[in-house]
Amino acid sequence: MIIREIVMARVNQEYREGARERIIIAAINVAIEKGWEAMTLEAIAQKVGVSIPALYSYFRNRDALENEVVNRVIQIHLDEFIAALSRDGDIHRIIQNYADLIFIHQARHVNIYSLLPIRFLNDPMMHGKVADSMTAELDLISNCLTRAKSRGELKKYLDVEESAQLISSLTAGIMLKLIFDSQINERIERKRWIMGVERILLISRDPDRADVQ
Amino acid sequence: MIIREIVMARVNQEYREGARERIIIAAINVAIEKGWEAMTLEAIAQKVGVSIPALYSYFRNRDALENEVVNRVIQIHLDEFIAALSRDGDIHRIIQNYADLIFIHQARHVNIYSLLPIRFLNDPMMHGKVADSMTAELDLISNCLTRAKSRGELKKYLDVEESAQLISSLTAGIMLKLIFDSQINERIERKRWIMGVERILLISRDPDRADVQ
Repeated sequence: MIIREIVMARVNQEYREGARERIIIAAINVAIEKGWEAMTLEAIAQKVGVSIPALYSYFRNRDALENEVVNRVIQIHLDEFIAALSRDGDIHRIIQNYADLIFIHQARHVNIYSLLPIRFLNDPMMHGKVADSMTAELDLISNCLTRAKSRGELKKYLDVEESAQLISSLTAGIMLKLIFDSQINERIERKRWIMGVERILLISRDPDRADVQ
Repeated sequence: MIIREIVMARVNQEYREGARERIIIAAINVAIEKGWEAMTLEAIAQKVGVSIPALYSYFRNRDALENEVVNRVIQIHLDEFIAALSRDGDIHRIIQNYADLIFIHQARHVNIYSLLPIRFLNDPMMHGKVADSMTAELDLISNCLTRAKSRGELKKYLDVEESAQLISSLTAGIMLKLIFDSQINERIERKRWIMGVERILLISRDPDRADVQ
């Protein structure tokens, strides 16, 4: 009898965790499809196929749910970022992977991840989370550049921190353009972003400088 | 008698134009001090020292006023931009002027001009205005780079359009950081921005490449 209760409690807990997970994923999908503003309890409940009161049995209130959604979006973003930057290859290969991440994976999520800082401009807690994720991202870029430098792929005098900051700002500016203008050609933006990053890293493959100077 | 009426009508019209102007300036100042969200009719009326019904005698409704405020902010921004980029000097001098514009003049207005695209993300008319002002800004940068190139200050193979786009995205990314993080050191960001622009334009004054490669 006792064993059966323990088993049932575990099954119940697993069921609840599975349900929480489905709710979070549904909320993210609503935000991806229609933006943060559209992520209402009604829209989420409809997506999961449950009632609004049922949502409340998993999340205290809308803020608690939104909080977990933001955590998850940031986590997914950082995981993808780590995966892209840690794959084998030289600096040119890494830049290509990074470009794929931005212009293929993240462009699909541009209205949620890129709008996070703006959406929560006046919410200090969310603000802090986004700032932490930006710092984590900057550190990842810096580490990646440091490794490339130690492999002799970047100039010895290249300032890794400054370059990482410049790459991060250039990327944010291009993402903003992607949010703002849905008519944008992502292939052209991708090529331009790569050109910009290569120039920031002083490894641009422009025609030999010597013969034009 | 007729002349007196004409004179009075003109005086009245000038008075009304002066009042409209004071209202627009007051609205901009409210937005600068407290952000777009705070630009309520109450706050504007208080700033000008008139009643809310008096505001309605100059502007049909809040949208009409907001519309004129956005036009004015865009116009001020472009005028400052034209002034900074058209002053005499070589490309390094122009970059310094541009940096002053961004990090001194515009940094003060960062919560209004830079937040325009975001604030009006879902308003097609405002959206169009901001897009037009971005195109105008890009053209100004391109023209400026073309002139520098014709003076022999930039490499012959430098792609002016691409470089202008990269500079514009880098700037937008840094402005976003300024909005997001009030703790930012503008002097450091300014120096970094100049470094980024010089690298994009392939005129960075980093140590001679030849001796480290």
